[in-house]
Amino acid sequence: KGEATKPSDYPLPPDSKAPTEVIEVDKKTPDGWLPRDPRLIRLTGVHPFNVEAPLTDLFNEGFLTSPELFYVRNHGAVPQVQDEEIPDWEFSIEGLVENPITLTLKDLIAGYPQITCPITLVCAGNRRKEQNVVRKTKGFSWGAAGVSTALWTGTMMQELLKVAKPKRGARYVCMEGADKLPNGYYGTSVKLNWAMDPNRGMMLAHKMNGEMLRPDHGKPLRAVIPGQIGGRSVKWLKKLIITDKPSDNWYHIYDNRVLPTSVSPEESANNQAWWMDERYAIFDLSCNSAIAYPAHEEQLCLVGAPEFYRAKGYAYGGGGRRITRVEVTLDKGKTWRLANIDYAEDRYREAAGTELFGGTIDMEWREASFCWCFWNIDIPLAELRDAKDIFVRCMDESMTIQPRDMYWSVLGMMNNPWFRVTISLEKDYLRFEHPTQPALIPGGWMERVKAAGGNLANGYWGEKIGSEDAEG
Amino acid sequence: KGEATKPSDYPLPPDSKAPTEVIEVDKKTPDGWLPRDPRLIRLTGVHPFNVEAPLTDLFNEGFLTSPELFYVRNHGAVPQVQDEEIPDWEFSIEGLVENPITLTLKDLIAGYPQITCPITLVCAGNRRKEQNVVRKTKGFSWGAAGVSTALWTGTMMQELLKVAKPKRGARYVCMEGADKLPNGYYGTSVKLNWAMDPNRGMMLAHKMNGEMLRPDHGKPLRAVIPGQIGGRSVKWLKKLIITDKPSDNWYHIYDNRVLPTSVSPEESANNQAWWMDERYAIFDLSCNSAIAYPAHEEQLCLVGAPEFYRAKGYAYGGGGRRITRVEVTLDKGKTWRLANIDYAEDRYREAAGTELFGGTIDMEWREASFCWCFWNIDIPLAELRDAKDIFVRCMDESMTIQPRDMYWSVLGMMNNPWFRVTISLEKDYLRFEHPTQPALIPGGWMERVKAAGGNLANGYWGEKIGSEDAEG
Repeated sequence: KGEATKPSDYPLPPDSKAPTEVIEVDKKTPDGWLPRDPRLIRLTGVHPFNVEAPLTDLFNEGFLTSPELFYVRNHGAVPQVQDEEIPDWEFSIEGLVENPITLTLKDLIAGYPQITCPITLVCAGNRRKEQNVVRKTKGFSWGAAGVSTALWTGTMMQELLKVAKPKRGARYVCMEGADKLPNGYYGTSVKLNWAMDPNRGMMLAHKMNGEMLRPDHGKPLRAVIPGQIGGRSVKWLKKLIITDKPSDNWYHIYDNRVLPTSVSPEESANNQAWWMDERYAIFDLSCNSAIAYPAHEEQLCLVGAPEFYRAKGYAYGGGGRRITRVEVTLDKGKTWRLANIDYAEDRYREAAGTELFGGTIDMEWREASFCWCFWNIDIPLAELRDAKDIFVRCMDESMTIQPRDMYWSVLGMMNNPWFRVTISLEKDYLRFEHPTQPALIPGGWMERVKAAGGNLANGYWGEKIGSEDAEG
Repeated sequence: KGEATKPSDYPLPPDSKAPTEVIEVDKKTPDGWLPRDPRLIRLTGVHPFNVEAPLTDLFNEGFLTSPELFYVRNHGAVPQVQDEEIPDWEFSIEGLVENPITLTLKDLIAGYPQITCPITLVCAGNRRKEQNVVRKTKGFSWGAAGVSTALWTGTMMQELLKVAKPKRGARYVCMEGADKLPNGYYGTSVKLNWAMDPNRGMMLAHKMNGEMLRPDHGKPLRAVIPGQIGGRSVKWLKKLIITDKPSDNWYHIYDNRVLPTSVSPEESANNQAWWMDERYAIFDLSCNSAIAYPAHEEQLCLVGAPEFYRAKGYAYGGGGRRITRVEVTLDKGKTWRLANIDYAEDRYREAAGTELFGGTIDMEWREASFCWCFWNIDIPLAELRDAKDIFVRCMDESMTIQPRDMYWSVLGMMNNPWFRVTISLEKDYLRFEHPTQPALIPGGWMERVKAAGGNLANGYWGEKIGSEDAEG
């Protein structure tokens, strides 16, 4: 302390180049005007645009993700906003408030404090492909790269709510975007209680990594709801409506829920009551982790290899709860070893007061952790060679731990069992397989085990259990 | 609404009678002056007094527990306070505050708003006996009754802190009790951020179920820290010290931690660094559940039995996160069925504004859930007869679920794997066994499986796994 924090102390965005060419397949879609990065993996065919980066590319970019590799979850056509229209973009705060407000983005920037901070967004469907291999869900097949981090610049939602003054009885903040969809504009809600709490960090952002939002990420204004699933961070934001009840928007009700595992797709279609039960709506993220290295189909030559192999990956918690340990096992959970954790987010805490991209870094007082962290562990080559697989799991500050078991549900969300990479010794090298590959890309040990008749849901990755023998 | 809420709408404390006779074994201890309930099971020999009620007795009392059956975790002799000294009990708020305060309990009651609300306390060691059967920990053997609920009357901690005015840089509230122990007075800390947040509900309480605190429960004043482990709710409270660092009290450092599972008792004794790492300190409770019925060694006669058996038990979450589902399996997790949940806590929310025991019930605005809930499910007798076991698990609003696996650690805390009761068909009745019995009481399927050479840590309750055969 006493010394000024140098910008080099915290990570700055990776080199980034906004795509300039419209990809051929996009040309026939409503997004035919929108240049995109060809590396992105399309998860729902061509349109709407739902994509993740290849996991290795995502991880290699480091703590911050470039806007062109940042995952995208769109429900329909991207609203088209010209640069010259940005300052006049209008949005409102209405409903159960004493002072309804309509303001422009220009007003927001001129009239309210601007902050810049790193926040990780995660799609509730991250790792859903694994669920789909076990049993088809109603959701499309995210791999493990439905997670990305950016520096967001904008205003705390709380600042606007304080001016609007919620009335007694107000309990929810409903949000609505400009994306018109078959079932109306996209919308959802969060708890007003939490929106008013600076520790929860909810904000309205107009910049991402220092540049204005790109169209797929909500240009020109979006909500960023830290620690919660991406589906709450409404893009192309037009309205905040304060209410006494949760949002009745179609997408709030029929998306982003974890119905009980006993509810089949048929039952969920036949009985609307399951969807109306707000207990099954997802807000906080679950703690989760994945292995980036060894990568899928990575080959490690044993001849002349260094004595240690460095395994690496990411982990994140929900609701601002920090990841406090990451553990790796080479013997299917009999013994675990501790990985090193790097929380790059902390370096912004230390930079309190610095101006960045037109906003103040102001995180020193906030104890919540809203970003992913990276872990690594050096494994003796000899042990890796003798192992059949390598698993990772994490635990957060509330002692919540990733479970062994998948919680399968109709929408296949919040999938977070131990992340397993298999190891096979082939001649003089080790070959690694991830559980799955995103979208319809084949590969991964799960499909292989399933094809061989293994039971993927017994907590033993397809191995036979004593009692199954007895019953069989 | 519009109608006054009748007191009968929310549960009132069960019939209670303060014990009047000192139990013979207590007479030779420093607590020889203190009458106690003989039903309580002693977990650490005679002294200090660490006890839980028999699980069935606890559950049968209902939502609120009588002070005489409420679990007790004492570290030493109980401070002796005469009734006439109560009003003059002095305590202070000091450290990094602009206005240090010393006040008496009389001042607290006269000068600050009084509230009454139900809060469940849980020992971090609840269910530790199960860990001790797997591998001896450094902690004593709680069964599943280290949990109890009472109506607490007192003042929100936040009200006092607002008057004391924490200075810039203040981050923790250290608490100290009057119980003098070999390593100093008992003390610990919580985050100031949370203590200032009314949604976290931290309070200083001087009444329990409408009567003054009994000696074992902190007479005359204690902290009640909802949603967190019992060890943070300091009894016989003398000091709140506002600091920039977590408590350096011996009990804060060497108790209530979940060290990594890879740390052995020997390693933890040899390497102090494990204890100094604040990441391993426990604050929020983990979500947890247990089966009360079938009770341990309950026998269910199949002849003339009703068509359904009603299984029942409790569940609780941590950090105010509500339990949103309770699931039961009869086939080792292949399929799960949903139990009914009764959240009695909600009936106090509906009673907003009512006066009770000298405090106002004021919970309508607070969305956090700080109490246990009760679950039940009707199981067809035919299915119960054919099953080998019955498990329960719960999930909270952050989609955190109780795991299949135990996370063994040196202090054996936060044990919360699926709770399993075994079923054996013996002639014309079913016999049920819980995992363990508290303290040194023998019994339960875990000891039986262990004695038969079963591996209790493989995720299959001692069954052989395919790969174990292969390796053996």
